[in-house]
Amino acid sequence: MTSHKPRPFTLEELRAYLIEIFPQTWSQGDYCIEEAGPMSAIVRLRHHPGHLRPGGTISGPGMFALCDLALYVAILNEIGRVKLAVTTNVSINFLRKPEPKDLIGKARLMKLGKRLAVGEVALYSPGLLDMVAHATGTYSIPIRGDDGASGG
Amino acid sequence: MTSHKPRPFTLEELRAYLIEIFPQTWSQGDYCIEEAGPMSAIVRLRHHPGHLRPGGTISGPGMFALCDLALYVAILNEIGRVKLAVTTNVSINFLRKPEPKDLIGKARLMKLGKRLAVGEVALYSPGLLDMVAHATGTYSIPIRGDDGASGG
Amino acid sequence: MTSHKPRPFTLEELRAYLIEIFPQTWSQGDYCIEEAGPMSAIVRLRHHPGHLRPGGTISGPGMFALCDLALYVAILNEIGRVKLAVTTNVSINFLRKPEPKDLIGKARLMKLGKRLAVGEVALYSPGLLDMVAHATGTYSIPIRGDDGASGG
Amino acid sequence: MTSHKPRPFTLEELRAYLIEIFPQTWSQGDYCIEEAGPMSAIVRLRHHPGHLRPGGTISGPGMFALCDLALYVAILNEIGRVKLAVTTNVSINFLRKPEPKDLIGKARLMKLGKRLAVGEVALYSPGLLDMVAHATGTYSIPIRGDDGASGG
Repeated sequence: MTSHKPRPFTLEELRAYLIEIFPQTWSQGDYCIEEAGPMSAIVRLRHHPGHLRPGGTISGPGMFALCDLALYVAILNEIGRVKLAVTTNVSINFLRKPEPKDLIGKARLMKLGKRLAVGEVALYSPGLLDMVAHATGTYSIPIRGDDGASGG
Repeated sequence: MTSHKPRPFTLEELRAYLIEIFPQTWSQGDYCIEEAGPMSAIVRLRHHPGHLRPGGTISGPGMFALCDLALYVAILNEIGRVKLAVTTNVSINFLRKPEPKDLIGKARLMKLGKRLAVGEVALYSPGLLDMVAHATGTYSIPIRGDDGASGG
Repeated sequence: MTSHKPRPFTLEELRAYLIEIFPQTWSQGDYCIEEAGPMSAIVRLRHHPGHLRPGGTISGPGMFALCDLALYVAILNEIGRVKLAVTTNVSINFLRKPEPKDLIGKARLMKLGKRLAVGEVALYSPGLLDMVAHATGTYSIPIRGDDGASGG
Repeated sequence: MTSHKPRPFTLEELRAYLIEIFPQTWSQGDYCIEEAGPMSAIVRLRHHPGHLRPGGTISGPGMFALCDLALYVAILNEIGRVKLAVTTNVSINFLRKPEPKDLIGKARLMKLGKRLAVGEVALYSPGLLDMVAHATGTYSIPIRGDDGASGG
């Protein structure tokens, strides 16, 4: 339903914009936007021993962060530079232990309103079919001077 | 309802046990268990510039981590050393931007079954009344050989 | 923080207003507002065999409805007649089988912004200490012409 | 991954079993199982003025009930007659007003463990592409004598 709208970014512009506004998160190479399409995005968390908890799996907060980022990228790629979405709610289900390798987050927006966006994201270990975790998130799209929840 | 049960840990034993089993999380002084009582725990995230995102607030994943840890501590303080709870679901609401200082997580268990524990946790900036974030979490308490969700 | 604000309704006015706008829900005596205070409300679901599923407990959807109504009443009692909140997200944990009697929902708002309200609600069987269910809900407070999620 | 397992029911047996164990819900024709496959089920709520709230839309609790039932059917169709799953957590996002006609719930299990099943369900008005609501649910699969949450 949004497929004919001009995209606010090319993939390269989107990557550059995220490094510009969130350098701590995006400039170190931990996360990579693999795809960003209509109402969707795929973000990869690169394997790095520092993300792992003892036992060799990626921590719950690490998985939460990837879910939040993938949804955020999908929204940003729809609404463009003018507004800044903030996370208001995330519900995450941890399903299986991730492999000690990269983790891929596939986000899809289910609703993009003027004030709220809602999406879901599924996490996978590369090459495996079973979902590692699944989250749904709600994001507020503030208007200047408006109250928004914090987070994100 | 659980107030007359002997506690599996003193507060010092609980702190030492967490450093023993999760040294990456608990040995660096970022988190401090302030209280651990029947079906409840209070955990403090110490202010450190590294937790902050640009703008001076604590990130969403940082708040998620504190919620998860506070609930985990409350459960561990009930079930003791023999079992290891794993996070199966967390639903978190981000309500207000936290102050650029410590963040306090007050966890309370609402159910402690043989296989599942459910609790809620409220995050506050020290000295302020308004809640910064609120989460509910479900934890699986595996029995040997059982399937448990990953996470936490 | 909202305690000195004039309330938009007396308890009787609130009851009458709900019967006026949602007669199917509120005019049959199934639900009764017991209290409505600053950022809070208590709503009772009266025991009626029709609410029960075989086995004598109140159904999950019946508990969901009570949670949603109690939060809705708490919000309405803050924002008054001019706006109509719509449910955007509810996360509910079912903790224990309710008794085959009345069920009491105690709602408390954690945030009341211009566009979003977030609250939690705990369900109890009368006279019992253990929580039967717990929910958190997010409500959109639409402005004329705005997009809001449906529900409620 | 479960596609080669013998199914515990044919579609007709599944319908008959649900009428047998939950006659109040399944014998009146409000709900109809349209499909039940590996890790999935499609359940239709038939249009009936009694489900509608003023304004002509299906109520939030009505949508919650359809989500819960569709997930329940998908689980039952995997685990068979011997066990009875109970709802422990549901997180539901209301996205758009449903049309005043039938409502279709498409459920898919993301994890089926020995003790917990987790799934998601999307609600649609027939013939429309935009999702009306989306829920994720966790179900406990009790073993005899075990503690399970209530609900469902």
